[in-house]
Amino acid sequence: MPTAAPETGQSAPFLIISSDTHAGLRTEEYREFLERRYHPQLDLYLRWQESTAEVRQQTQNEEFVRDWYEDNDEGLRASWDAERRNRELDRDGVAGEVIFPDADAVSATTAAPFGAGIGMAGGAYDPELALAGARAHNRWLADLCRQSPARRRGVIVAPIVGNVAAAAAEIRRAHADGLRGGIMIPSLWGHGNRPYHDQEYDRVWAVCEELRLPVQTHAGAAPGADLGRHLGLYATEVAWWSARPMWFFIWTGVFERFPDLRFGVQECGLWWVADTLWQMDVAYEREHGTKKLASFGEHMRRRPSEYFDANCFVGGSTAKRRELSERYQIGVRNILWGNDFPHPEGTWPHTREWLRHMFADVPEDETRVMLGEAAVETFAFDREELAPVARRIGPLPADIGQDQPARRSAGEPAAAPSGRHWLDGPDVPKIATLRREKGRPGSPG
Amino acid sequence: MPTAAPETGQSAPFLIISSDTHAGLRTEEYREFLERRYHPQLDLYLRWQESTAEVRQQTQNEEFVRDWYEDNDEGLRASWDAERRNRELDRDGVAGEVIFPDADAVSATTAAPFGAGIGMAGGAYDPELALAGARAHNRWLADLCRQSPARRRGVIVAPIVGNVAAAAAEIRRAHADGLRGGIMIPSLWGHGNRPYHDQEYDRVWAVCEELRLPVQTHAGAAPGADLGRHLGLYATEVAWWSARPMWFFIWTGVFERFPDLRFGVQECGLWWVADTLWQMDVAYEREHGTKKLASFGEHMRRRPSEYFDANCFVGGSTAKRRELSERYQIGVRNILWGNDFPHPEGTWPHTREWLRHMFADVPEDETRVMLGEAAVETFAFDREELAPVARRIGPLPADIGQDQPARRSAGEPAAAPSGRHWLDGPDVPKIATLRREKGRPGSPG
Repeated sequence: MPTAAPETGQSAPFLIISSDTHAGLRTEEYREFLERRYHPQLDLYLRWQESTAEVRQQTQNEEFVRDWYEDNDEGLRASWDAERRNRELDRDGVAGEVIFPDADAVSATTAAPFGAGIGMAGGAYDPELALAGARAHNRWLADLCRQSPARRRGVIVAPIVGNVAAAAAEIRRAHADGLRGGIMIPSLWGHGNRPYHDQEYDRVWAVCEELRLPVQTHAGAAPGADLGRHLGLYATEVAWWSARPMWFFIWTGVFERFPDLRFGVQECGLWWVADTLWQMDVAYEREHGTKKLASFGEHMRRRPSEYFDANCFVGGSTAKRRELSERYQIGVRNILWGNDFPHPEGTWPHTREWLRHMFADVPEDETRVMLGEAAVETFAFDREELAPVARRIGPLPADIGQDQPARRSAGEPAAAPSGRHWLDGPDVPKIATLRREKGRPGSPG
Repeated sequence: MPTAAPETGQSAPFLIISSDTHAGLRTEEYREFLERRYHPQLDLYLRWQESTAEVRQQTQNEEFVRDWYEDNDEGLRASWDAERRNRELDRDGVAGEVIFPDADAVSATTAAPFGAGIGMAGGAYDPELALAGARAHNRWLADLCRQSPARRRGVIVAPIVGNVAAAAAEIRRAHADGLRGGIMIPSLWGHGNRPYHDQEYDRVWAVCEELRLPVQTHAGAAPGADLGRHLGLYATEVAWWSARPMWFFIWTGVFERFPDLRFGVQECGLWWVADTLWQMDVAYEREHGTKKLASFGEHMRRRPSEYFDANCFVGGSTAKRRELSERYQIGVRNILWGNDFPHPEGTWPHTREWLRHMFADVPEDETRVMLGEAAVETFAFDREELAPVARRIGPLPADIGQDQPARRSAGEPAAAPSGRHWLDGPDVPKIATLRREKGRPGSPG
């Protein structure tokens, strides 16, 4: 898509895209978007939802939740009201958004029916019903996106575990209906179901490559049977479960079969990325620890970090300064910022203050990439259409502290400018482990 | 245990303990240590082992494997021969060792019967048979340790998933038989089995606390049904599966119920540790992302990293320089080096060269802790008994390059001397997300 060059410099406002926002109706309001034959199941689902509200409450900080709703009653209506939504985005300085489901991440009152949402896990939903719920949400979301289409990319909810063919058909339908924010697949395929290296899923990846829809996971699901009610376990593991499909794609040849496919991990932090790339690359190079293993497969024609650069991205919603300090290892262009609007763990309605905290000591050009340019490319936003919005609402570099000398607390890690140090020299020594590697038959040591 | 103070200075050799070595008999030779009633099952097991050899070979680099056995035929006999074993340890400069099962990590010819080894996973073994196999190995290992007892700590193989009471009894028996290297539990409890937060396991933790036996996992197991034959997936995930029980202990109160219990993660690298501590601490402090959650439980009386410091350790077998650069975040005293003898991914028989590569730019006192002192304390080695061995075989600081100026390739991370930077100041900004946090009822922003 031909689109104007990005504006730069201290007097150019940032063009900000949140690659992670949420929208959804109250569950019962999805009825009009749900095929009539599923209406009886919707009644049952609503009763079940009501009966489990108390259990969900036990996982919440009641006081915080009460205050959150009281403070943000108006703003939260933006979850389904397009006009209010634009006002809230404007307030946050956000010109464009990529919209995931489940606007209410507190009480789950805006969950699409039958488990079609950010908590999707194979085995935890009925495939036929989840697809019906996904269709209802996707239809409604397409309506929302038709209002201010330049600013919105709607994510197609795609419960692909179960009936792969039907899921692929729904992706095609929803795309034709106007959704352009990629697809969201279940983070977990679930015990006993096909893992994501199974080529049965190729028909989904093929549709996504053809239609230029990035495949995404979003933090939410975790294996409840393992974790029980221990919220600390959930807090520690949840990112891993949604990040996991990424290395399934990289190691098992999905990007060789679908070289134009893109895969993104949303709202899982950035802290695991550099180590994962390091760890995969070092293993791939058959360093000491993996010498004994057979081939990683003929399809592994490139280093894992090369597939990452070519095919993957990571969502940096409310990234921490520690995480941004690793941006040269992760790759600046691979990081897509998000405000997670309107979730309480996101930065809304204080995004401008958050940006100052996170980006004050990041160079302006890199900031532009992470805050917007990477998302423009990934989701084919039209920069020209968004430019007037950005000019009206986008913060200037000075507004987020980039006119000040960088401040960092003692000991806080600075960004290592060298990036992927392991590519410049092996991270393991060239110590022979076999006599023949030494080129002489004598005893080693 | 009263024991001499460590010797220090440039003229004092390092007292080196490998907290990760392996020993085992060829499977059929466990027969004489196996109760007679299981002999018919051993015959079947041996036939099964033979019939699956080809499948195992497909995961191996054939050429490397052939050379490895050819080169190390003599040395590998140290897997079961105590005298040779001491010679190999001497050659590597290693005074003491903590001995895990499965000496042969290539062809699995030294696996204890019935799956009682480093690949242990609940659901993948028959509980009664695995316990019988564990008893056979533990009996044999106690014999091995009785030769040069000052230098050896044998790890009790404990397949606790299944019959918890019987496993606890075996731990007590094996301890009485002389094994003092802690216990090794299955890394995975397996689908449908009790996760490690289940208090049914308290009877195991209680015995281990009473007898001062650290509970350990060791890299090896991974969920085969998910990974298929994709070795890259295995290489990327395997550490996570054995590290996972650590946060189950930390978050679910095990160390509150058993404050003197210790838990160690062996041969899983160090790269995940600093991030995991950071991530758990930040979540625990109810920073922005976890504000909405209910309490982490009344048992969580301390910060996760405090439990880690008080109760946990990590094995640094063949640690990479990148990993050692994070030692102040991990905690120098929490790192126990190992040579993984006699596995090909370990440093034997070239440990002296590896130490030079890894520790040349690490201060001498910290090197002493990671190479030996931390293990002396964790496994109650007698420093006085080991001192003469160390004096005879231990490398001097100059032997591992500590008399030279530190060399580091461009861009390679240096150790951040500040350690846990997130404890000095919050890693998330103090931005109010509720109006009442601002102390004024006006509109936010």
